[in-house]
Amino acid sequence: MNYYMPTQFYLENNCIKNHQKELNQCGKKALIVTGKHSSKMNGSLDDLTESLTIPYVIFDEIEENPTLDICEKGAEIGKKEHVDFVIGLGGGSSMDAAKAIALLIKNKQEDKTCFYQKKELDYVDVICIPTTCGTGSEVTSKAVLMNPSEHKKGSISHDIWPKYAFVDGKYLAYASHELIANTAIDALCHLIESHLNTKATDLSHMISGYGLQKFKTIKDSLLTHEYNYNELMLVSSIAGMAIAQTGTTIPHALSYDLTCFYNISHGQACGIYIVSYLRVGIEQNDQDAKDVLKYLGFSDIDSFDEWIHKLIKKPKIEDHEFLKNSILKNEAKLRTSKIYIKSAEIHKIIEESLD
Amino acid sequence: MNYYMPTQFYLENNCIKNHQKELNQCGKKALIVTGKHSSKMNGSLDDLTESLTIPYVIFDEIEENPTLDICEKGAEIGKKEHVDFVIGLGGGSSMDAAKAIALLIKNKQEDKTCFYQKKELDYVDVICIPTTCGTGSEVTSKAVLMNPSEHKKGSISHDIWPKYAFVDGKYLAYASHELIANTAIDALCHLIESHLNTKATDLSHMISGYGLQKFKTIKDSLLTHEYNYNELMLVSSIAGMAIAQTGTTIPHALSYDLTCFYNISHGQACGIYIVSYLRVGIEQNDQDAKDVLKYLGFSDIDSFDEWIHKLIKKPKIEDHEFLKNSILKNEAKLRTSKIYIKSAEIHKIIEESLD
Repeated sequence: MNYYMPTQFYLENNCIKNHQKELNQCGKKALIVTGKHSSKMNGSLDDLTESLTIPYVIFDEIEENPTLDICEKGAEIGKKEHVDFVIGLGGGSSMDAAKAIALLIKNKQEDKTCFYQKKELDYVDVICIPTTCGTGSEVTSKAVLMNPSEHKKGSISHDIWPKYAFVDGKYLAYASHELIANTAIDALCHLIESHLNTKATDLSHMISGYGLQKFKTIKDSLLTHEYNYNELMLVSSIAGMAIAQTGTTIPHALSYDLTCFYNISHGQACGIYIVSYLRVGIEQNDQDAKDVLKYLGFSDIDSFDEWIHKLIKKPKIEDHEFLKNSILKNEAKLRTSKIYIKSAEIHKIIEESLD
Repeated sequence: MNYYMPTQFYLENNCIKNHQKELNQCGKKALIVTGKHSSKMNGSLDDLTESLTIPYVIFDEIEENPTLDICEKGAEIGKKEHVDFVIGLGGGSSMDAAKAIALLIKNKQEDKTCFYQKKELDYVDVICIPTTCGTGSEVTSKAVLMNPSEHKKGSISHDIWPKYAFVDGKYLAYASHELIANTAIDALCHLIESHLNTKATDLSHMISGYGLQKFKTIKDSLLTHEYNYNELMLVSSIAGMAIAQTGTTIPHALSYDLTCFYNISHGQACGIYIVSYLRVGIEQNDQDAKDVLKYLGFSDIDSFDEWIHKLIKKPKIEDHEFLKNSILKNEAKLRTSKIYIKSAEIHKIIEESLD
């Protein structure tokens, strides 16, 4: 059994300003990696730049599903500007891009081809400041990037741990209900997929079990929109701590094709499959699967199904065979599921989940 | 809310040998800090030296309650031998001494007077290998040392995080039932004192709550001696992760005088007070205190009292007033208890706990 999560994690109101000292001690010049709009709208970019007493450069070109190319571009700017640490500000896309950029800034001889190579590379310090409640990237070492030329999405080969995670729920006040629901469902999938992972341990179950019980207390708010923002953020970070130990499994693996080929957002794409996947576990009488339902406060799998379909719709997709073949080729991923999943189960999950 | 525990933690059979590569990559020459006897008896020292392919020096003079002087002596040897990392092998005493020694080896201009000074000092890498199931020092940044000239025992001012914790239950097979019980009770006190600490957060409660529920599953084995050694170790490390977030509170604070002036071992000394302390919380109708009893599987506080007194005896001590005054002077420590504790409560705890 192993456990590792070295990030210094803070969650509180006015988190960035409270930890101004640690922030400014990270280096001499910062590269802020963020998106075009939301960090300007929700006040997080202002909070950050007002807290920085050292010079900084802003790279605000990150969009959903950041590409290898955009990370290379960010790193070029960082190198030209001689920054010595990177701050990822936004959703998972900005934080994941910040990690990849930190790798290239440290290793000036490398380019984007190193992202998926298995070699040991160091990185400059990364600070993560999430403004959505799903990714958990602020407490994981993973960075998921998109390679549009190959229609592929996947985590890079390098472990890049944020030095600090500064988490403040207040930025969620500017997010749409849809964004909150989609990202919270991503966090829910992290919790379930960690709990049912072959890599799960007592310590990862401690985290995923607690996170699922916390999710129970916030799940109604996704329907009523009466949110407790810091609790939403906490659940999302706990879910990140859980997958940091185990990784994800089938629903995430299935989701990537929905995002790459059908342009369905990440949280939705995972949520589309999560109930059918869990249902397979329940039908196999798996104790961990039954615990998931219990922790979430659903009396049975149909109640879970009903709840999630108030938040996400079953997509109409014609080519089910393509999706089935795509996942069945990924034997390594199939082995990450503690629930027994072979061809028949994949068939069932895809037929149940898609129209 | 914050959370930080950067140690890479491993728990498994043959842990040291399995992680030989990481171990040997820590530096060019190691100082092994351990006691005179037990690490030789239980096979851990052999496992360690057989796994080291780099040179090492053994400093085996650590006894229970290590002193400032013995740490200074260990550091002198380490410096003379040009070691560049330290391995603490044994109970809390060896691991805590290893941390203090790592501080002095890095800061050659300092001596033992720096231990309780508030200044920022770096340290060489520390690896911790516990062979008892109580201290949790392998996953905390604290080092408790003894200053015999002042009859004082306390944690040094510096945070020293182990780089790796290598945990293997098999070494417990050579420990006496008494040692296992005493150290397991120390772990139990860590869990309870973390759960009832003013510094407790959702994340520390996740850890202490899970640890208490794990303790429920091992508590009978302390009476029957039918141990699951890795589970004992796991509970102890979880308890360490909990106090790493919160610190301890009243029972630990009270215990130090019993150890310094009455030579009562650390686990016993904490266990002597734990039930009466929890009883105060139950009488205050504190929900966290009630949760502690529930998680441990005791129907009421008297059942807990009965269970613990099968393992430890109420000591005969005459000067109760001295002990009361000693803790009442320590206002900072009184404030760490979420349970309301003032003079009347201290009086009650001491009168109930001692003969």
